[in-house]
Amino acid sequence: MMVIMVEGATEAQVAHVVLRVEEVGAAAHVSTGERVTVIGVIGDREDITALPLEAMPGVDRVVAILKPYKLVGREFQQRDTVVEVRGAKIGGGHFAIIAGPCSVETPEQVLAAARAVKAAGGHMMRGGAFKPRTSPYAFQGLGEEGLKMLAAARDETGLPIVTEVMDPRDLDVVCEYADVLQVGARNTQNFLLLAELGKLGRPVLLKRGAATTIEELLMSAEYMMKEGLRDIILCERGIRTFETATRNTFDVSAVPVIKIASHLPVVVDPSHSAGRLDLVLPLSLAGVAAGADGVLVETHPNPEHALCDGPQSLPTAVFGEYAERVLDLVRWTGKSVT
Amino acid sequence: MMVIMVEGATEAQVAHVVLRVEEVGAAAHVSTGERVTVIGVIGDREDITALPLEAMPGVDRVVAILKPYKLVGREFQQRDTVVEVRGAKIGGGHFAIIAGPCSVETPEQVLAAARAVKAAGGHMMRGGAFKPRTSPYAFQGLGEEGLKMLAAARDETGLPIVTEVMDPRDLDVVCEYADVLQVGARNTQNFLLLAELGKLGRPVLLKRGAATTIEELLMSAEYMMKEGLRDIILCERGIRTFETATRNTFDVSAVPVIKIASHLPVVVDPSHSAGRLDLVLPLSLAGVAAGADGVLVETHPNPEHALCDGPQSLPTAVFGEYAERVLDLVRWTGKSVT
Amino acid sequence: MMVIMVEGATEAQVAHVVLRVEEVGAAAHVSTGERVTVIGVIGDREDITALPLEAMPGVDRVVAILKPYKLVGREFQQRDTVVEVRGAKIGGGHFAIIAGPCSVETPEQVLAAARAVKAAGGHMMRGGAFKPRTSPYAFQGLGEEGLKMLAAARDETGLPIVTEVMDPRDLDVVCEYADVLQVGARNTQNFLLLAELGKLGRPVLLKRGAATTIEELLMSAEYMMKEGLRDIILCERGIRTFETATRNTFDVSAVPVIKIASHLPVVVDPSHSAGRLDLVLPLSLAGVAAGADGVLVETHPNPEHALCDGPQSLPTAVFGEYAERVLDLVRWTGKSVT
Amino acid sequence: MMVIMVEGATEAQVAHVVLRVEEVGAAAHVSTGERVTVIGVIGDREDITALPLEAMPGVDRVVAILKPYKLVGREFQQRDTVVEVRGAKIGGGHFAIIAGPCSVETPEQVLAAARAVKAAGGHMMRGGAFKPRTSPYAFQGLGEEGLKMLAAARDETGLPIVTEVMDPRDLDVVCEYADVLQVGARNTQNFLLLAELGKLGRPVLLKRGAATTIEELLMSAEYMMKEGLRDIILCERGIRTFETATRNTFDVSAVPVIKIASHLPVVVDPSHSAGRLDLVLPLSLAGVAAGADGVLVETHPNPEHALCDGPQSLPTAVFGEYAERVLDLVRWTGKSVT
Repeated sequence: MMVIMVEGATEAQVAHVVLRVEEVGAAAHVSTGERVTVIGVIGDREDITALPLEAMPGVDRVVAILKPYKLVGREFQQRDTVVEVRGAKIGGGHFAIIAGPCSVETPEQVLAAARAVKAAGGHMMRGGAFKPRTSPYAFQGLGEEGLKMLAAARDETGLPIVTEVMDPRDLDVVCEYADVLQVGARNTQNFLLLAELGKLGRPVLLKRGAATTIEELLMSAEYMMKEGLRDIILCERGIRTFETATRNTFDVSAVPVIKIASHLPVVVDPSHSAGRLDLVLPLSLAGVAAGADGVLVETHPNPEHALCDGPQSLPTAVFGEYAERVLDLVRWTGKSVT
Repeated sequence: MMVIMVEGATEAQVAHVVLRVEEVGAAAHVSTGERVTVIGVIGDREDITALPLEAMPGVDRVVAILKPYKLVGREFQQRDTVVEVRGAKIGGGHFAIIAGPCSVETPEQVLAAARAVKAAGGHMMRGGAFKPRTSPYAFQGLGEEGLKMLAAARDETGLPIVTEVMDPRDLDVVCEYADVLQVGARNTQNFLLLAELGKLGRPVLLKRGAATTIEELLMSAEYMMKEGLRDIILCERGIRTFETATRNTFDVSAVPVIKIASHLPVVVDPSHSAGRLDLVLPLSLAGVAAGADGVLVETHPNPEHALCDGPQSLPTAVFGEYAERVLDLVRWTGKSVT
Repeated sequence: MMVIMVEGATEAQVAHVVLRVEEVGAAAHVSTGERVTVIGVIGDREDITALPLEAMPGVDRVVAILKPYKLVGREFQQRDTVVEVRGAKIGGGHFAIIAGPCSVETPEQVLAAARAVKAAGGHMMRGGAFKPRTSPYAFQGLGEEGLKMLAAARDETGLPIVTEVMDPRDLDVVCEYADVLQVGARNTQNFLLLAELGKLGRPVLLKRGAATTIEELLMSAEYMMKEGLRDIILCERGIRTFETATRNTFDVSAVPVIKIASHLPVVVDPSHSAGRLDLVLPLSLAGVAAGADGVLVETHPNPEHALCDGPQSLPTAVFGEYAERVLDLVRWTGKSVT
Repeated sequence: MMVIMVEGATEAQVAHVVLRVEEVGAAAHVSTGERVTVIGVIGDREDITALPLEAMPGVDRVVAILKPYKLVGREFQQRDTVVEVRGAKIGGGHFAIIAGPCSVETPEQVLAAARAVKAAGGHMMRGGAFKPRTSPYAFQGLGEEGLKMLAAARDETGLPIVTEVMDPRDLDVVCEYADVLQVGARNTQNFLLLAELGKLGRPVLLKRGAATTIEELLMSAEYMMKEGLRDIILCERGIRTFETATRNTFDVSAVPVIKIASHLPVVVDPSHSAGRLDLVLPLSLAGVAAGADGVLVETHPNPEHALCDGPQSLPTAVFGEYAERVLDLVRWTGKSVT
């Protein structure tokens, strides 16, 4: 931590900061410039972070030197984390296609989607039974009934299930059926939910919120790792910006930024990033080329009858063609697709 | 709803959209321009919204004509909602100062803050016992013990308590002590929590999320009103933008935009908007001048020893001076401050 | 400047940075932490800034200690700059209303607007003769003919003229008629134009660009002050964010942030910030309450026949009422309105 | 154009809008819903756009049906535009690497960079002689002297020159040396400069501004096409968002969005998008995979002595390796690299 004093800070103000720093057992190194004094603070990260240094008289601002996360960082674990679910692997050179409908609607719909994903070489199946919707008047998902439909489709195809959990009170029921628990973009900073998930031990796919920085996303993963969870998959799904041509702005840079900072696998969600069917393939390819470990993509047997996200869902009829192109590029990058 | 077809859409595509619209009992009015055909859709809002019109072949985009909310809108209720809590009123010409520390730390700290708020003519007391923190290593609040300290301060000063609830499982315990339940900026779209709060009936202060549009904020209030709650206070607390001089960008326009669209009261939170002590007064005044029904502001007897948000907390020693200036401007606007 | 090395940076890398710093005549203070080494660099700001420190092996990032501007800063000049134009003063406790139509259309229109501004107690007249328009098919302004209409209105009312200049080649002709040269939001970082204006000496009203940070706005003013100009008025007119309820997001915090950092006067432009007539008054009041030294506002005798920005223009018929409310609040703040 | 009236708009208000629409020779189709009336307006785009419909009493908002651009759209020209410069082609299945230093510094530096670009299979050379810098104290470029160094490098390597022009007054001198005129991100909406360039006929590389929407970028290209220019290359270089891990947010979606909407070629600039050397390769690959027609990238023989943008410049020593990877992926996409 570096404490930068205002121009004209008094010696007493500098001395006061040094005193407070030393009170928590840290060391303070004062460096007096021509116009500005800087105090370097060295010691235990948590003790120092807890100090309200910026509230002290004469302090202009405080610059963090160390990163705020530990367990999710490359410094803590050099090698890539590989998340393995019923034989499907993601991370560390393994690539996975995770696909399925936005929301579970009928047994036939889920099964048709699962078969298409399986036939195309996909690795996991996604589908929502608990749906967060902006409007209270919109379809909110089938709940446990939907989870059963997913499980039936898994029984037939062998594809592991990725499904969203929104409420700590639903964890038991969702865990009965799901292989990977998805935390949606509106819950990226639902810290209580994260802490519960960290204790459970079931693999988690954590989506970046629309206004969450990459560092905050890593801190949310840290919440789970702190409780003991190791199997965490991060997901870029677009951020909120001024551009209106796409629903969100797909921040493809997040992929290499995370791969450099963390050992956790990263997948991209081109469906929610763009909200446009005609961008799903090019954004998937962009994500793969940038180093993503997987794609999370919506497919539906009949998008124009979908109860949710129809406009951006790949019809299952063209899913094979889509997956072929994606997997071909994955091979070009050198990652494994089996 | 207006469905705008792509240039070159075929007659069959237009006929198909009309068919799907009529299937849900709505009426379709086709208007054929020189280059583009537009289909007006008239009927029940929910039926139409559920149709994935944008997924249909030949459709370019869909434009909503009606607003997506009902109960929170001025069309539904012309007169201002007035929220009354233990005698304190907010909305409909009544202004309230809600102040206190970011987090509850000790009985003495809470009491000192509450006394300062009371002495300055403040109307309610805020203070966090359950704290959402970006870092799992940061202070997470005192929980029920903190709630008890708040209640003790209320016993002495008579100020009603506003405190955050993050988890549906905490509702019972929080309701034992709190007068107004605060939903924080990370839970603005925690729809399950909102639905529970809507059923409870206790007044709610709903903060706008850092990446929540005003319309989405109103939809979140609609979640609670749909369940029967009437006593909802909305709160502008800054949005995420590219500007770094302030922690968030205080969107003061949200105040008049909400007052025009909705009957619900709106308060502003200058402390979290700016994250800078020296902006708390000017932003409070800006909010009041723009028509806010209250301010939510942090004050602490000793900010440089605060466990949370010290740098932006007004020292209680200057709180009287702050409140005097704010209340004087409120009087200028013609609102009541008692 | 603080150079923060990556974890694991070698001694040779640190030594190399020190060498490069000393080569430009600056001093380097090495501070070795448990995990990270930080190098404080002290010396002439320009010499150090020119060094590509971040490109050097082992460097993680570089943190600036000193502000990048000099002449516009409070450190350089403590007292407020007062810009005086034909007797109208702005800054240093003097408030000014600058109003008029978005674009100059006819002699009658300009005169009607100018009379309304004068009658309402306004201080300067605005009106565009050179218009930057997103579409090449939109009305681009009347050019010199428009300037003559403004001059005629000034002759009658005595109100000084504020008008936009977009091209260095137009400076001569615009200076023949204008009292204050306005730099629009699309030219905030047109550095060549700024440098020319800095040499001219005519007062300048510099608008903040839609994606310009406050610090960058100050740097653009610095371009002009470096060339000798002292009479600069800064203008907040909304920034680009994800919110769509308003055309731009009015960043009212910019007012106190600039007043703290700089001695230059600041005005607000509620018309372009919101793009909505019904927000012009509340945002004007918010700006005044936050400490603005003036408002720049659009008024038109017949907005629904305006060639530009009709929807957000105050009809001249209600301008008096608007100005009265604004000036009354200005008096409350203690500023002078004459 | 669809005019959406407010709920409760009177018949007289509707009639007034219809009258104004018909006055400009357009047709108005009134569609009366249960709660809201919508007026479809059909006629000449420019006439309608010029009408300030939103300023008319009872109008809620106006929705554009037709796109605001013509000449740059796919509707106007189906086949891809191919820009050819001294034998190098870009667009229509032809890919180009455009590389070189941020700023021209010495003849040796330019020549070393040009040789590296040529040897690696690059197609054009970039280098700035006129530099827009945020700070007036930063290096502003060598001007004509720099252009001569670029020309000398072209003489030896045969690589065409891409260089920035900032001021209409510099067009003559820059055109003496440059093959492609670059419009930088701060001049994307410098409409006077665009109009001049449109008349000149020299190919232009137009960068997207940091807060420019894709539609606005296309409108800026329309300014040039309206004047007769056909050879326009668009460039995505990152937009301003709240994320701070990268200097800007590389909006890779802009590539397919533009390719769908327009016939003009699109290149990506990973160097300025990220401002980080370690992201240049992954973002280049992402752009190529998304369908870009080229990359614009910074390379320097000695980045840590660069006068500008050293931290993000590829050392020429590794440029061959970089280009090999990029071109290999271009071949995978099916585009030509010769």
